[in-house]
Amino acid sequence: MLKRYFPILSWLPGYSRADLTNDAIAAAVVTIMLIPQGMAYAMLAGLPPQAGLYAAILPLLLYALFGTSRSLAVGPAAVIALMTAAAAGVVAETGSAEFHFAALWLALMSGAMMLLMGLFRLGFIASFLSHPVMSGFITASGILIAASQLRHLLGAPISGKTLPQVVPSIVGNLGNMTPATVILSSVLLVFLFWSRKGAAPVLMRLGLSAPSARLLAKAALLVAVVVSTLLVWVFGLERFGVAILGEIPRGLPDFGLPTVDLDLMQLLIVPAIMISIVGYVESISIGQTLAAKKRESVNPDNELIALGLANIGAGVSNAMPVTGGLARTIVNHDAGATTPAAGAMTALSIAAAIMVLTPLMYFLPRATLAAIIIVAVLSLLDFRALPRTWSYSRADGAAMAATMLFTLLVGVEQGLLAGVGLSLGLFLFRTSRPHMAVVGQVAGTEHFRNVARHKVATDPTVFAIRVDESLYFPNARALEDRIVQALSDQPGLRHVVLQCTAVNYIDASALESLEAINTRLKDGGVQFHLSEVKGPVMDQLERGHFMDDLTGEVFLTQFDAMVKLSPDLTSACANEERCDTLLRSA
Amino acid sequence: MLKRYFPILSWLPGYSRADLTNDAIAAAVVTIMLIPQGMAYAMLAGLPPQAGLYAAILPLLLYALFGTSRSLAVGPAAVIALMTAAAAGVVAETGSAEFHFAALWLALMSGAMMLLMGLFRLGFIASFLSHPVMSGFITASGILIAASQLRHLLGAPISGKTLPQVVPSIVGNLGNMTPATVILSSVLLVFLFWSRKGAAPVLMRLGLSAPSARLLAKAALLVAVVVSTLLVWVFGLERFGVAILGEIPRGLPDFGLPTVDLDLMQLLIVPAIMISIVGYVESISIGQTLAAKKRESVNPDNELIALGLANIGAGVSNAMPVTGGLARTIVNHDAGATTPAAGAMTALSIAAAIMVLTPLMYFLPRATLAAIIIVAVLSLLDFRALPRTWSYSRADGAAMAATMLFTLLVGVEQGLLAGVGLSLGLFLFRTSRPHMAVVGQVAGTEHFRNVARHKVATDPTVFAIRVDESLYFPNARALEDRIVQALSDQPGLRHVVLQCTAVNYIDASALESLEAINTRLKDGGVQFHLSEVKGPVMDQLERGHFMDDLTGEVFLTQFDAMVKLSPDLTSACANEERCDTLLRSA
Repeated sequence: MLKRYFPILSWLPGYSRADLTNDAIAAAVVTIMLIPQGMAYAMLAGLPPQAGLYAAILPLLLYALFGTSRSLAVGPAAVIALMTAAAAGVVAETGSAEFHFAALWLALMSGAMMLLMGLFRLGFIASFLSHPVMSGFITASGILIAASQLRHLLGAPISGKTLPQVVPSIVGNLGNMTPATVILSSVLLVFLFWSRKGAAPVLMRLGLSAPSARLLAKAALLVAVVVSTLLVWVFGLERFGVAILGEIPRGLPDFGLPTVDLDLMQLLIVPAIMISIVGYVESISIGQTLAAKKRESVNPDNELIALGLANIGAGVSNAMPVTGGLARTIVNHDAGATTPAAGAMTALSIAAAIMVLTPLMYFLPRATLAAIIIVAVLSLLDFRALPRTWSYSRADGAAMAATMLFTLLVGVEQGLLAGVGLSLGLFLFRTSRPHMAVVGQVAGTEHFRNVARHKVATDPTVFAIRVDESLYFPNARALEDRIVQALSDQPGLRHVVLQCTAVNYIDASALESLEAINTRLKDGGVQFHLSEVKGPVMDQLERGHFMDDLTGEVFLTQFDAMVKLSPDLTSACANEERCDTLLRSA
Repeated sequence: MLKRYFPILSWLPGYSRADLTNDAIAAAVVTIMLIPQGMAYAMLAGLPPQAGLYAAILPLLLYALFGTSRSLAVGPAAVIALMTAAAAGVVAETGSAEFHFAALWLALMSGAMMLLMGLFRLGFIASFLSHPVMSGFITASGILIAASQLRHLLGAPISGKTLPQVVPSIVGNLGNMTPATVILSSVLLVFLFWSRKGAAPVLMRLGLSAPSARLLAKAALLVAVVVSTLLVWVFGLERFGVAILGEIPRGLPDFGLPTVDLDLMQLLIVPAIMISIVGYVESISIGQTLAAKKRESVNPDNELIALGLANIGAGVSNAMPVTGGLARTIVNHDAGATTPAAGAMTALSIAAAIMVLTPLMYFLPRATLAAIIIVAVLSLLDFRALPRTWSYSRADGAAMAATMLFTLLVGVEQGLLAGVGLSLGLFLFRTSRPHMAVVGQVAGTEHFRNVARHKVATDPTVFAIRVDESLYFPNARALEDRIVQALSDQPGLRHVVLQCTAVNYIDASALESLEAINTRLKDGGVQFHLSEVKGPVMDQLERGHFMDDLTGEVFLTQFDAMVKLSPDLTSACANEERCDTLLRSA
């Protein structure tokens, strides 16, 4: 029981010296990545650089206590940072104190939502977000993120949150670029891109083993940071217009709940819901993928609780919303992290770095952080997903396209809402048209099959229909319409038999529909029968008064029903030849 | 083809003298009901009385041209009037010119939405509104409607749109009632209630046939109107504080599109969607019920087109939103209406009445109209629906209760949204947990059944699971979670077989999930197989690259899969006794 809520109890008692070594190495590698990435994502969110570092302390400690994934690296992440910037930008000016205040409330509120979803096992809410919508959203966000960093890469005052705002701003600022910044950015981008694939082979040639070389290659971020900072410092590049980070407060963040502002909280509800769902879906997919590699498991409810607490931790420590990040998680895993203790050690290293290293970052160019973001988001872009999804299913492709277009052209929240709305609408559209088959008897058998697909015998006084789905409100009307239609189409009709083989559930709407069908058929002088009703469904039906009002009977099988309602047909069909004659005369 | 869009072509050519007589009688009876009801519903909507009469002219003519129901009586209706009052009340003060302007745009916009839904066959959108939500909404609306009429019945300035506003207002106004109005209302209410059941027997004793007596009893409304008007006029009751209608403009309405106001239209989009859906659902249920009695059919798409045009007609003729009304439709049907021409004749009678009778309505007490509304809405109240639905299904009962509570306490739009939101959420919750069964082989057969329900043999190296639903985004994650879980639970696992007997469809989200399952199993050294995949689903899967990546095979049957993956088990199970030994040793 305790282990259910405190997963730490399942690994801490058996924690060994070997585990400690592995976790410490992983923590060191992740810290090296996290310091520049944390500051970069804070900049992306429109927050001061330290917010990204603070987001790597308390949240990581809380996740280590409550998380079930052994290698998930929690912290600031690109898409969540973009969503934070968009939401806080609606209520306050970027860079203002109110803006950071809004970001803290976003972390607190989305954290509280995740926590509640986890405690009440409401993780299914994340299933509102279909794969195509999530995938389209991430690609579109990646484009917007890259676009938002152009101002730092080019040293020009490019602004705007959507493509229709950014593109004219780029065009208008082509003459305002800062040459020194452009040169620095280009060098950094080339180096960082090269390092992704090219650094490891070089390090191997220098004598490192393949795994060590791959890990050390991740230090390319650190190299970029150190070298570009030194360049600025030594050559005084800030005099040539290269924007630098400037002073970063030294020491741990102030802890405490930000002032409660109900009006602000109301404005942030919808974005907080979105951040909690996107953050959770991103994180759980990464966690499950890695857990599978080690044949471990990740508990979705626990993950919600842990991520929720991590975000609340971010909110009370002057940080920003957090989630599990893909790149750092893979590094953490590859570096050999064996327990969540690696995350806790990362947090301690970051805390130490904040107390010692921040003065050294004074001359760190913003262009370096922008280049780090650009390289990170490129892995998010998947342009082939749209044609692939479209060719697989028009509905899913349309939902993905709508998400991308709305995100790029209108905004991140509108994009998500459009995608979720459209995929829900299309889903309801599909479920509102369940597969229904009018059935007839196969000659020489007791089987009944779709008249449209098989050579079967039917009786004009009996309308036998099979519904291949459970009956609930989205499809209740379709059945009603179809049977009422038959009533006017078949003048000789005397019996309707609903074959319930595939019906696992009947909700109150469908029950009302069945009652309406029964009444309408009765008014038209037709009896309504059921066949092959499953046990639990029968129990359900007997709870209402439907069974008392039913004009017809409930038959065990469709064949039993036809023996009673159309003895001529069934006796004729017992003999294959006679049935064929019947078919020809029909 | 022409008949598809002009259903009038299917009845007009065969129109006989007998039809004419029947329709004319029905039109006369409906007109007598519609004049007071139209003015009453206009008052309920916060509009001048003539708006309700105008709503019974052009809309009825348009419905007669485009409608497929032969006896549906279109016009102003109680619930739609309440929704109009609520929506227009948000953007303008009740009774102002802007208020009527908003009501006209509500009619135009909801009409346009219905028209589009009909033309593009989007009627399935109405399935968002489940039976319990609609039923709870109508009962709660009935209560609010009754409460809104207390000011007219008691002659006291009672105000408020929701119970928390109305109840204190009633208490505060207990001392402000107008005695003459209270007495008049009481007499009218007693008379109108009595007339519903008591008038017909009295008329029969006076020598009328049963059907004629029942129809003539409907003239009780007219009697109430005439007698109460005369009472006011003769005794000068207005001097005792009895509120009267006052001047009603004589003659036909001004036709024309109201001024386009984009800001206003944006504010009215959501209420217009709600009015179009509630109006359509109300109307189609009534239409289908009556059509079934005559074994005729009502085409849902045509009904949307016809109702849409009727509402657009209302919007351009200074009227108010309209839909098919239950009470008048039953009267129309009972009075013998055989074609939509009855509706057209009703429209002409109302037009004649407006040109001639309006001066006579100067002294008509508002209390009379309020009493007519009260008697009409009582038939809407169904208090037993909630306990009945709750006992049938907790989920449906909760959706109904939420709709009623939010409607009564917060407002009509919020009530509908809460109900639709909750029922959708609960529906997704249910579909997000599809029925999944781990299966094993039944001794001595080639059948595989749920291990939890049957005595079956399984192999610890094979995890065979059957999903009893199509795979789409709401349930994709559940399957992923379940299989990934098995990977960590069964250390000896080498094969996973997904039995797809019940899978009719796999959407892009589920496909991604299958790919993720395949990859994760591969990472864990486990092969992923499918069995009993239906033809169309197989075609679908082959469109993506899933089949190329699949680590395992696709088997025709679950038995084939087990013969290959676990020959020991299947050969042992061929012999019932040996299988039993196997079961005991497992």
